[in-house]
Amino acid sequence: MEFPHVQRPDPTVHQRVPDGSATFGFLKSAQAWRRMFAEAWGTFLLVVVAAGADVVGAQSGGAISLGMKVVAPGMMVMAVIYFMGTVSGAHLNPAVTLAFAARRNFPWSRVPGYLVAQTVGGIAAASFLRAMFGTLGLLGATTPGAGVGDLRALVMEVLLTTGLVSTILGTASGARNIGSNAALAVGGYIALAGLWAAPISGASMNPVRSFAPDLLRGDLTTTWIYVVGPLLGGMIAVGFEWILKGKPTEAGALAAQGELK
Amino acid sequence: MEFPHVQRPDPTVHQRVPDGSATFGFLKSAQAWRRMFAEAWGTFLLVVVAAGADVVGAQSGGAISLGMKVVAPGMMVMAVIYFMGTVSGAHLNPAVTLAFAARRNFPWSRVPGYLVAQTVGGIAAASFLRAMFGTLGLLGATTPGAGVGDLRALVMEVLLTTGLVSTILGTASGARNIGSNAALAVGGYIALAGLWAAPISGASMNPVRSFAPDLLRGDLTTTWIYVVGPLLGGMIAVGFEWILKGKPTEAGALAAQGELK
Amino acid sequence: MEFPHVQRPDPTVHQRVPDGSATFGFLKSAQAWRRMFAEAWGTFLLVVVAAGADVVGAQSGGAISLGMKVVAPGMMVMAVIYFMGTVSGAHLNPAVTLAFAARRNFPWSRVPGYLVAQTVGGIAAASFLRAMFGTLGLLGATTPGAGVGDLRALVMEVLLTTGLVSTILGTASGARNIGSNAALAVGGYIALAGLWAAPISGASMNPVRSFAPDLLRGDLTTTWIYVVGPLLGGMIAVGFEWILKGKPTEAGALAAQGELK
Amino acid sequence: MEFPHVQRPDPTVHQRVPDGSATFGFLKSAQAWRRMFAEAWGTFLLVVVAAGADVVGAQSGGAISLGMKVVAPGMMVMAVIYFMGTVSGAHLNPAVTLAFAARRNFPWSRVPGYLVAQTVGGIAAASFLRAMFGTLGLLGATTPGAGVGDLRALVMEVLLTTGLVSTILGTASGARNIGSNAALAVGGYIALAGLWAAPISGASMNPVRSFAPDLLRGDLTTTWIYVVGPLLGGMIAVGFEWILKGKPTEAGALAAQGELK
Repeated sequence: MEFPHVQRPDPTVHQRVPDGSATFGFLKSAQAWRRMFAEAWGTFLLVVVAAGADVVGAQSGGAISLGMKVVAPGMMVMAVIYFMGTVSGAHLNPAVTLAFAARRNFPWSRVPGYLVAQTVGGIAAASFLRAMFGTLGLLGATTPGAGVGDLRALVMEVLLTTGLVSTILGTASGARNIGSNAALAVGGYIALAGLWAAPISGASMNPVRSFAPDLLRGDLTTTWIYVVGPLLGGMIAVGFEWILKGKPTEAGALAAQGELK
Repeated sequence: MEFPHVQRPDPTVHQRVPDGSATFGFLKSAQAWRRMFAEAWGTFLLVVVAAGADVVGAQSGGAISLGMKVVAPGMMVMAVIYFMGTVSGAHLNPAVTLAFAARRNFPWSRVPGYLVAQTVGGIAAASFLRAMFGTLGLLGATTPGAGVGDLRALVMEVLLTTGLVSTILGTASGARNIGSNAALAVGGYIALAGLWAAPISGASMNPVRSFAPDLLRGDLTTTWIYVVGPLLGGMIAVGFEWILKGKPTEAGALAAQGELK
Repeated sequence: MEFPHVQRPDPTVHQRVPDGSATFGFLKSAQAWRRMFAEAWGTFLLVVVAAGADVVGAQSGGAISLGMKVVAPGMMVMAVIYFMGTVSGAHLNPAVTLAFAARRNFPWSRVPGYLVAQTVGGIAAASFLRAMFGTLGLLGATTPGAGVGDLRALVMEVLLTTGLVSTILGTASGARNIGSNAALAVGGYIALAGLWAAPISGASMNPVRSFAPDLLRGDLTTTWIYVVGPLLGGMIAVGFEWILKGKPTEAGALAAQGELK
Repeated sequence: MEFPHVQRPDPTVHQRVPDGSATFGFLKSAQAWRRMFAEAWGTFLLVVVAAGADVVGAQSGGAISLGMKVVAPGMMVMAVIYFMGTVSGAHLNPAVTLAFAARRNFPWSRVPGYLVAQTVGGIAAASFLRAMFGTLGLLGATTPGAGVGDLRALVMEVLLTTGLVSTILGTASGARNIGSNAALAVGGYIALAGLWAAPISGASMNPVRSFAPDLLRGDLTTTWIYVVGPLLGGMIAVGFEWILKGKPTEAGALAAQGELK
């Protein structure tokens, strides 16, 4: 059987336009939209699962246990890395995008676009949940646990995100050795962080995952914890990665940027 | 030690018949039966696990928790992809077969055979469960959760299947990079979809998985939700894949069709 | 830094004895003991985990949930395949050894030794548990669930083992494609079989895993179910593998026999 | 896009110093600090998760089930092996370091530094937990279960660690075949040991994981069990590995020492 239309990804525009430099510009622009779409769709999936598990739990009278709630988003990130990590790097998290940039694996010029795409994806997910279920379960918001207080929640978010970004940077830089199992390490870390620490701070580790439900439920009181904590933890992990691995590697840049040309 | 009888898969008929073209026709026919058997046996296993967990849970007075029920079918699909993905592509789901065809990774001419084999496998699984346990636990049927309603269940099936088929198409197209870990991504996605969303719609994502128990218990009232939702979600995912990856790839065709010649 | 003593596995006796043929005989004999030890130690670990989870659950007043009990042995088999699959093939189960032989991936002449080693390992595990905890929790015996009856338990063991041996034979024959992820498929299958079906028959799928606790607790009434069921299921899976893959492959023989020369 | 500063890890000092031998010494010293930092940070993460799950469980009124408590540290070790296994070998455990040395995969001269780094990391983790939560949940200490007694706890730690170190040594020696899936085997083993046996001894398998909380809570009564048991189990596993695999391999040395030059 023949598939005459099957070929490797290559925008057809390239062959239609005689002017090479213009084609290249168009090409880059098409790829940029691809990356934006990937980050938005991937972050939508992450937030709809992470926040949605709380919402569905509330809607169903407690059918979703804490263990189920925290494992599901980790597996979602694993799947997203597998199905579109080569498109955008599958950051899905401003703390990750900024850490990759600070680590010099990712160009600062692309950071604003990624943050916008992630925010759009996260807000779309929270909007979907509110349209489906109202503000049940606080729309899956992350808040400091009972008796924990803002400061301890902040410290926990810093620690958890330091571990997460250490895992992400460390597996990215070693891509030659670790290969696609990096998705297992990253997804597994997200799951385990919730397994042991969710009752303290919600184990968000991601400003957009926390901001989107807070915005849609109209309570931004504790959102700052989940912006400051993950960003700070990410920067500490960048420092640790420097100690552990030295200068950034090409493998890390490839993992952070995807493989689109 | 010698194994004179050990060799690579190669139907012996090939050597018995002098007429090459006839042999090739017979060969293709034998491979077609292999694919049919693979889809039927694989779908049997998926449905017997997914529906059976509910049935066994009812039979044992609740020994199977929701978490156990939803993780088991995901692991079953992972195992099936590993043990016979190279034979038939291990679709196990009409929504997947149609999405592969719409994505031009799979020939439309083989679609009817796959749908028949999947339906036969699913009905055999539901028949097995009924013979063993009667119609306990509604034979593992998927239905909208209490207080959910048909429309919200439909929307949830659309969303969940969009994510599933995104994962399947995206890992198939990147087979060169992802290798056999695609089975982990797909199996993991099926598990996580149930972990966060099963109380809403049952997280079927598969017309045959829902139709077979409904047929055997004699209640097809809500079956349409699980036909329309997954098929619609699958088509949305085909569109998303076009945005993310552009034209279909040879790797995707290989993953969708298996490796039999 | 130098490791003058580090080299690839190669019995030193080989260099001490001038007579080549005698050396080779000794070499083969040493490797045979290695395989025996591997099967005994691996089966010990499998049975001590599978039966031990019930015993520890009874000893601790129910601290081990059904989900924990059935997932642990699956992960144990995964780890054993990884750490010594290349030594003996890591069968750990007479139903697997006989299926590999019937599939012509494994020489019949080695079958008796494997069955003895597996039985010794299983009895050692049950003896360890009895010495530590008495016959608490029926020593982890598998028995038909309440209200199930022998026949339905037997049918369930046949079905579950057909799936297990399909997974084992199918991933072994495709070793070139699946690589070491076969351990995930097999370990995952063992876990999922328990997740959905343990209340019916205990999801043993392994004559030694059931015989050893029955022997040590002195009740062999239902042991036959767990001998007949797994052996029958294994043979069905051999037939299925013939349909799916045709003649046995070298990759399958390598997986079944390990890589020792 | 160009990354003029991106290159493979290579301390820049090398180019600044004209004296080759001095450079090499400095280089080795820098790499030694990297290994120390890796072992300290990795052991911190392991202990903060393993002990922290108990502490958070106590702080949150029991929100963390036993299954969650024991799976989280296994996944943490998996992630650590992936993100920095190539730096230090990711031992995280004196029983592992001593077993690698006894197996001749790791130089005895580096053992003291590793033990110090692991101890520092473990104490830092216990200190963090005490600063955050006081001595709630006994700071996550491992102790013999109710009605178990010291001797049975000791025997269980010996058995569990024999399995753990068998898994570690066996997957390290077979690195050519198993590749980076060794992290799944080791992390999976740690999780399963807790799943079936945690109520007996806590399933520590690691002197530092037990010593650090005992030190910080001021009760070293049963610490000896978790020093003697794991060390003894590790040595038995070294003997088993000799039987299974014969002489140590270069692959094992590479896995044990990391890939820094």
